[in-house]
Amino acid sequence: MATLARLHEQGFIDLVARLSRRSRVRPLIGIGDDAAALALPARTRVLVSTDLLADGIHFRSDRCPGLLLGRKAIAVNLSDIAAMGGAPHACVVAVGFPRRTPARYAADVARGLAQQARRYGVAIVGGDTCAARSLVLSVAVLGLVEKGRAVRRSGARVGDGLFVTGRLGGSATGLRLLQRGVRADENVRVRNTRMRPGLRPHVAAAIRRHLDPEPRVLVGRALGLTGIATAMIDLSDGLSQDLPRLCDASGIGAVVEEAAIPIDPAVGALLKGRAALGIAIAGGEDYELLFTASRDHEALIARLARRLRLPVARIGEVLPRRAGIRLLTRDGRYRSMRRGGFEHFRT
Amino acid sequence: MATLARLHEQGFIDLVARLSRRSRVRPLIGIGDDAAALALPARTRVLVSTDLLADGIHFRSDRCPGLLLGRKAIAVNLSDIAAMGGAPHACVVAVGFPRRTPARYAADVARGLAQQARRYGVAIVGGDTCAARSLVLSVAVLGLVEKGRAVRRSGARVGDGLFVTGRLGGSATGLRLLQRGVRADENVRVRNTRMRPGLRPHVAAAIRRHLDPEPRVLVGRALGLTGIATAMIDLSDGLSQDLPRLCDASGIGAVVEEAAIPIDPAVGALLKGRAALGIAIAGGEDYELLFTASRDHEALIARLARRLRLPVARIGEVLPRRAGIRLLTRDGRYRSMRRGGFEHFRT
Repeated sequence: MATLARLHEQGFIDLVARLSRRSRVRPLIGIGDDAAALALPARTRVLVSTDLLADGIHFRSDRCPGLLLGRKAIAVNLSDIAAMGGAPHACVVAVGFPRRTPARYAADVARGLAQQARRYGVAIVGGDTCAARSLVLSVAVLGLVEKGRAVRRSGARVGDGLFVTGRLGGSATGLRLLQRGVRADENVRVRNTRMRPGLRPHVAAAIRRHLDPEPRVLVGRALGLTGIATAMIDLSDGLSQDLPRLCDASGIGAVVEEAAIPIDPAVGALLKGRAALGIAIAGGEDYELLFTASRDHEALIARLARRLRLPVARIGEVLPRRAGIRLLTRDGRYRSMRRGGFEHFRT
Repeated sequence: MATLARLHEQGFIDLVARLSRRSRVRPLIGIGDDAAALALPARTRVLVSTDLLADGIHFRSDRCPGLLLGRKAIAVNLSDIAAMGGAPHACVVAVGFPRRTPARYAADVARGLAQQARRYGVAIVGGDTCAARSLVLSVAVLGLVEKGRAVRRSGARVGDGLFVTGRLGGSATGLRLLQRGVRADENVRVRNTRMRPGLRPHVAAAIRRHLDPEPRVLVGRALGLTGIATAMIDLSDGLSQDLPRLCDASGIGAVVEEAAIPIDPAVGALLKGRAALGIAIAGGEDYELLFTASRDHEALIARLARRLRLPVARIGEVLPRRAGIRLLTRDGRYRSMRRGGFEHFRT
């Protein structure tokens, strides 16, 4: 089997460059020099973010097809730009491959990176490929946002509604299925599941949510440009961790209505009621957007959601800080929301 | 011993933020939101580059003090901006730490990152810290360069002189010393060497070149702004690999005079003649700048070198492509220059 040891260091990044040539953004200087050079439009702000995916932590290379890994590395970065209301513009990719990596796997990763970048009109303008003990992909992305239009975590006001795009819990459910031995190819065709045929589409849907998340770029942009969102964050670590972050940054509290949390239909089909709700609250990596907006904008948000064909649910309300972060249960009681999402470094 | 498992994920990057607060560049939005936001001056070009350092490949965490590792991760990225004639502006840092990493080591890395960024007036505006199987540091840097002033690898013209800043071979010599068991602390005080006292300063100097390289930002900027450099590249993989890259990009050949290659005094002191020359030619990670310039500018370059107190040597000349890349030996013979530097993935 051909391994990366036979591939010249420059080979991988040249492959990415070749595959992503048709991007809409044209750098003045692209891959192949010491740095890329970009001419950015005047009067816009430049957003910068970085996210690293490490084998054994964020993914398992033996379970994650290379194509989807490449796509995800771009997607999780675009999600950060989306959460600021920005338009992703260009990115650089640093990849460390163990020497034993099959050349085919590396080529699939390159294809996934290029495909996702092209899909969102982002140019891959530079990169670094090297050997590493364990597979890592680090992407840094540049986005553009109009002056004064970046949506911060800190702008939520008491009385604002609390909204979430899409549906929650799918990604964490997909991860559990993978951990239990279900496997999927790069088209997310599911193998070796013993579930009954009626559940299989849900299995595939959950695994797709985990392996191939969609950054909410369009809705993030719309919420930012229109000024609808007063604060926004992407749900990378789960509602129970990311909501407290938004609350801390804004100096507010919040109440979330259990009954209003939009649970991914795959989660509903595969897990029982309480477990489904739990994973929708504490599960990470849905990459949906959590935002706050004035009550006056509720109708506007509903119209936007219909237009973009993406559900947006009002899940609660912003309270004064002293109220803390509460969950209103279906039987009308309040409980405090635990920070229970995925945390690295936890012992 | 406290390990990172006890440090909250956000802790590391908050520490970096706290340590680098006094940077000259002030982002509109810094660390702590989904992305940073920058207001960049109009009419400049934005340079972007990324470089990843992986444990066991680019460094060994058991031999490289955390402070110096943090500094180096920034330095190697700044070197790419320097090679374009740009001014480094801001960077983002993604770090993957094994769970067993001592908290002290991580704090040292944070200190090194912040220290180096501050030294070069660069803002650390974002980051991602996560667990990883093996320690990796990935930095992406943004630089600014005036319109039309970016120095590419491709602008060398036949008849141009070939120049190199500083002195070569020190870093590769330092690496060999580390491989042979010499150890240094974060102040590059050398331990357990059995060399005679007269050689010890050279040992320390070589190890410093390897563990704590200085990006040539100032001279790169001067060579770009003045238009002196027609093509430029930083010597990360060694003259014998980086010169061919510059030649390929410019479609030229070159002759290098052995006698003109500036050998690091530490190398001269520690190695014999041929070996010293060999390591100056093929050794990597000196992070000096290799550039071409018209002969008319030779006096100007000498003046610039004196002013910046950095030696700049004319080591050869640009030839037509068909001449290939030759080395003129001390005894007046020509030999073809092998690509003999450090290459990843080589079996």
